[in-house]
Amino acid sequence: MDFSVRAANLEDSKDIARMIMELAEYEKLADHVKITQKDLERDGFSKNPFFHVVITEVPEQHRTKEGHTKIGYAFYYYSYSSWKGRSIYMQDLYVMPEFRGKGVGKTLMSKVAQLALAAGCHQLNFTVADQNKPSMDFYLSQGCFDVTASLGYHYMCCEGKALEHLAQP
Amino acid sequence: MDFSVRAANLEDSKDIARMIMELAEYEKLADHVKITQKDLERDGFSKNPFFHVVITEVPEQHRTKEGHTKIGYAFYYYSYSSWKGRSIYMQDLYVMPEFRGKGVGKTLMSKVAQLALAAGCHQLNFTVADQNKPSMDFYLSQGCFDVTASLGYHYMCCEGKALEHLAQP
Repeated sequence: MDFSVRAANLEDSKDIARMIMELAEYEKLADHVKITQKDLERDGFSKNPFFHVVITEVPEQHRTKEGHTKIGYAFYYYSYSSWKGRSIYMQDLYVMPEFRGKGVGKTLMSKVAQLALAAGCHQLNFTVADQNKPSMDFYLSQGCFDVTASLGYHYMCCEGKALEHLAQP
Repeated sequence: MDFSVRAANLEDSKDIARMIMELAEYEKLADHVKITQKDLERDGFSKNPFFHVVITEVPEQHRTKEGHTKIGYAFYYYSYSSWKGRSIYMQDLYVMPEFRGKGVGKTLMSKVAQLALAAGCHQLNFTVADQNKPSMDFYLSQGCFDVTASLGYHYMCCEGKALEHLAQP
């Protein structure tokens, strides 16, 4: 299948917001999504962006029945390991269901790995839900390492009232 | 106990490197540490730093028998959730053993939470090893949410040869 992978720009924000929601729906966690297209435009495409996106596009003749030609994305930001140094954290890797199994996800992740190495990063980190077995199998087949399974690391979150309470001196 | 918490600067790099190693030794994972004081100086205290540190200092009369007055730190960077927006990822929270149980860790984490809210962040994320029960209990008592336990998210890593291989088109 013919497809291109490129850095996303401001005009892609609407499709990125759509696909973020599609991914959350796939994970049955759509009610967790609070982000808007406007947030993405402000935080991803200003002078010091908080995140970056690479996006996959297919030619017009392969567009979905809803008319979409942007059919996958990888969402990442630069991070830092106090053990290994510069890293990239890949927040999302998504390909629309009808385009899976054609190497799109692998190409997107490969692009992120290239960007990581070019920026002097030593690690590419991400999380995957253990019930998402196809993704977990794919990552393990690529030589990725399950830090939760091997070192017992749990991913934790503090938000909302707990975060406000914690911030009180 | 009398102690101060402040943003770290270049001159703190040596103590930060020392405490990163102490934390890894406490977790029995010292062989994973590749970072050097020089890496920290270059990546943390240049114009667009990859990470930030808040550090705790005690007065001279409370210094350790090795002469240390910098006795704890929190290591963090700005991150981004595609569901919730701006976030902070706290890589490390460490207090030297002889200064534990005096509120130093809580004060450091509170400082990071304040910085998070001031920067418009909605989440403070981190990982904790499940065998580190005192830390896990502390975080849960603060209202933090175990994403691995509740949503089954595993923290994953791609590095070394696997990362190089993945980057090949």
